[in-house]
Amino acid sequence: MQYRLTLKILGLLLMVFSLTMLPSILVSLIYDDGAHHAFIVAFLWVIAVGFGMWLPVRNWQKEMRTRDGFLVTVLFWLVLGIAGSIPLFLAPEVHLSYTDAFFESFSGLTTTGATVITGIDDLPKSILFYRQQLQWLGGMGIIVLAVAVLPMLGIGGMQLYRTETPGPVKDSKLTPRIAETAKALWYIYLTLTLVCGAAYWAAGMSFFDAISHSFSTVAIGGFSTHDASIGYFNSVTIELIAVVFMLLSSANFGLHYVAWNSRSIKHYFLDPEYRAFQVIALVLASMTSITLLLIHTYTPFESFRYGIFESISLLTTTGFATADFTIWPLFAPFVLFMASFIGGCAGSTAGGMKVVRVLLIFKQGLREIKRLIHPKGVFSVKVGNRKVSDKVVESVWGFFSVYILAYGLIFFGLLACGLDFVTTWSAVGSALNNLGPGLGEVALHYGNIPGVAKWLLCLAMLLGRLEIFTLLVLFTPQYWRK
Amino acid sequence: MQYRLTLKILGLLLMVFSLTMLPSILVSLIYDDGAHHAFIVAFLWVIAVGFGMWLPVRNWQKEMRTRDGFLVTVLFWLVLGIAGSIPLFLAPEVHLSYTDAFFESFSGLTTTGATVITGIDDLPKSILFYRQQLQWLGGMGIIVLAVAVLPMLGIGGMQLYRTETPGPVKDSKLTPRIAETAKALWYIYLTLTLVCGAAYWAAGMSFFDAISHSFSTVAIGGFSTHDASIGYFNSVTIELIAVVFMLLSSANFGLHYVAWNSRSIKHYFLDPEYRAFQVIALVLASMTSITLLLIHTYTPFESFRYGIFESISLLTTTGFATADFTIWPLFAPFVLFMASFIGGCAGSTAGGMKVVRVLLIFKQGLREIKRLIHPKGVFSVKVGNRKVSDKVVESVWGFFSVYILAYGLIFFGLLACGLDFVTTWSAVGSALNNLGPGLGEVALHYGNIPGVAKWLLCLAMLLGRLEIFTLLVLFTPQYWRK
Ligand SMILES: [K+]
Ligand SMILES: [K+]
Repeated sequence: MQYRLTLKILGLLLMVFSLTMLPSILVSLIYDDGAHHAFIVAFLWVIAVGFGMWLPVRNWQKEMRTRDGFLVTVLFWLVLGIAGSIPLFLAPEVHLSYTDAFFESFSGLTTTGATVITGIDDLPKSILFYRQQLQWLGGMGIIVLAVAVLPMLGIGGMQLYRTETPGPVKDSKLTPRIAETAKALWYIYLTLTLVCGAAYWAAGMSFFDAISHSFSTVAIGGFSTHDASIGYFNSVTIELIAVVFMLLSSANFGLHYVAWNSRSIKHYFLDPEYRAFQVIALVLASMTSITLLLIHTYTPFESFRYGIFESISLLTTTGFATADFTIWPLFAPFVLFMASFIGGCAGSTAGGMKVVRVLLIFKQGLREIKRLIHPKGVFSVKVGNRKVSDKVVESVWGFFSVYILAYGLIFFGLLACGLDFVTTWSAVGSALNNLGPGLGEVALHYGNIPGVAKWLLCLAMLLGRLEIFTLLVLFTPQYWRK
Repeated sequence: MQYRLTLKILGLLLMVFSLTMLPSILVSLIYDDGAHHAFIVAFLWVIAVGFGMWLPVRNWQKEMRTRDGFLVTVLFWLVLGIAGSIPLFLAPEVHLSYTDAFFESFSGLTTTGATVITGIDDLPKSILFYRQQLQWLGGMGIIVLAVAVLPMLGIGGMQLYRTETPGPVKDSKLTPRIAETAKALWYIYLTLTLVCGAAYWAAGMSFFDAISHSFSTVAIGGFSTHDASIGYFNSVTIELIAVVFMLLSSANFGLHYVAWNSRSIKHYFLDPEYRAFQVIALVLASMTSITLLLIHTYTPFESFRYGIFESISLLTTTGFATADFTIWPLFAPFVLFMASFIGGCAGSTAGGMKVVRVLLIFKQGLREIKRLIHPKGVFSVKVGNRKVSDKVVESVWGFFSVYILAYGLIFFGLLACGLDFVTTWSAVGSALNNLGPGLGEVALHYGNIPGVAKWLLCLAMLLGRLEIFTLLVLFTPQYWRK
């Protein structure tokens, strides 16, 4: 393990991250909300600690290796989670315990969007802005991680239909490739955010709300500057804009890159994963709307309006809300929460298990049935025109089962904390899928559950974001052996 | 499809099954409980219908082929479920609706052991005997199915560590092999039943209860002649006997066969699946007992007494009860219900996903982690000393995912029937794993849930018993094509 290099990277990371306190200081001064103090202190602490970590190892010049990537990636999230929690903990206006401050920060950075705060409408603008920005930064980190880092570690959905072997380049030099890819992704991410923000603004949001919600839409985050979430605006236009950008942000960012380079949108309809996602979204939104229509909860127009919005919000794992689905018959939110296990496409900011994995599991299930009927037949699993190797199919199954296992273990932990079944069921799924909202005791916010439960949910968020295996590898003796 | 042959087999099956009404008629006459009428009518109906089906096609001499096996196997359960429900529906002493009579019959035959009847202690002896006998017959059917039929169809855990290809012999002649294997299994099953019954009798059960409970123990069924189940006897000796025979009946019956032929018990400690089962049982029983000890629900002795019994009862999917675990903190029954997803070994009367599958999933998970750390390494999954082919590993994953999918779909159905979350969660798992007991509204019995929910649970029991794929294959167009 190259510990000195790890320290250097994390030190640099912290110094860069400290700069993200500056916009909040500016917002605080503009709105004169009095919360600038917390951000200034946080800025100084984070930059000082980062500098202190970087200084003694600044001349360390070794290249990072694939294997170090596992540790660095896990520490990346933990260190940012802690750094991000500082202003939330310090600001007297939100008076959070440290557990709550970390939960809020981590939920933001992982783009989960579960909140422990009530009375969001009354918070200082700078704190509101900071929460939204945490999600946006987290989303950026996730894209880079999903598109550039995890595939090199052999983890994640991205490489599933790209290469034949899960670990393509052993001990390859990571840095140059990451930097190049990250830059292209950054432009796409920024463009999406700007267009989304402009659309929100044009549709009637205030400038502040437009920026804030474009941050959490493109990041599939789900934080809002209002307790009532997107429902606050009560605008069909705004809801439509949100739906469009949730769907766009659920696409593989590599697909946006291809579309941008070729100046053509045809790839959105050719990519097998995004096509499957569109079909799932359509089926889910129709099912939900028709269900709402049949049970007479709303008028026909409202049934489709709320049905479509909530379906897309939960499927993409955004977690924005316009309707109170806790008053729906339980099976309707049940299906939406189950849909969040699918999530968006690999290489997007969305959570869940990712569409490509669900697609592969489905196709392999079909192959099993074909094999039973024709025992001597040879069948291969294909995505698009590409044959998927058995090794890749196996890695998907491995992912699927550890995902379920992680869900079961954290489920057990939350029950042991004394939470009821519906609360536990929804909260664990919501955290693991980086979705956000819950049912039961966490229907409104996560503030009232025990501290241990909050930490367990943070673990679930981390596992979801790290596609589980990145963290799991660190717990094997083999990893730490020379 | 050889429909005439199918009809002939089912006709013969019904005629044989009609004979199983005779012992109940005898019991009714001995105890003079007045219920003999229902059994006589049922006997006449079943034998007449069977004869009517068999008569026109009795000279049809074609051999059965593998492919026909799927349809015959599914019809086998359905036809027996209907035939078995007749006396329960006719007997005025139990006054069941047809839905309830079928549920009780099907729950018995699939050795699930979920009941819709209250006041079991007050039922006529002949009805009690009949219910226990249904489980015993079902258990026999399951063993033959699991050891002889399903492997030929390429389904089931049995072939997982036996052969390399899921469908070993295409269109082979089924009958002679089944008959030979079935005979050996029948002796083992009978011997286990007799020894178990004798032990119960010696431990203080009445002769009637001893036979009745040996039937439902060896079949991993869980029906009892008392509302309080095994708890009625309040005897540590009886509970220990039950634990021993639940553990024995959870072994692959092929293993009993080997042990019997070689006059040695060493195979019970050499077989990788049964060894894994022993480890799981030990860990689960210890965990449960220590948990009960720590939460001060019982005295230390009771903690181990109830902890061990309930752990083995739920892990093996028997479903006998001695303690009321609905008063335990929810996470304790949660773990026991999750354990029932493992179940016993392939080729036993136990339900669940079977130990060998869980073992393979676990080993493949370990391989995935090794592959991440050493991307160029070649690792194989082994059970014992045998290398498991990728095809077999994939078939296990396929099973795992359709199992979860079936669980999710029936879960949705029960929620849509208006059942609460804990009831649904426990009932669906209990039916799919052929376990029996539930929580919430079905903690005592399944009588009060809506009729649609009962039929959905019957579907879950069937799916569990048919290892899902047997039924799934029938819903593909490929199966029905020439
Ligand atoms: K989210
Ligand atoms: K059972």
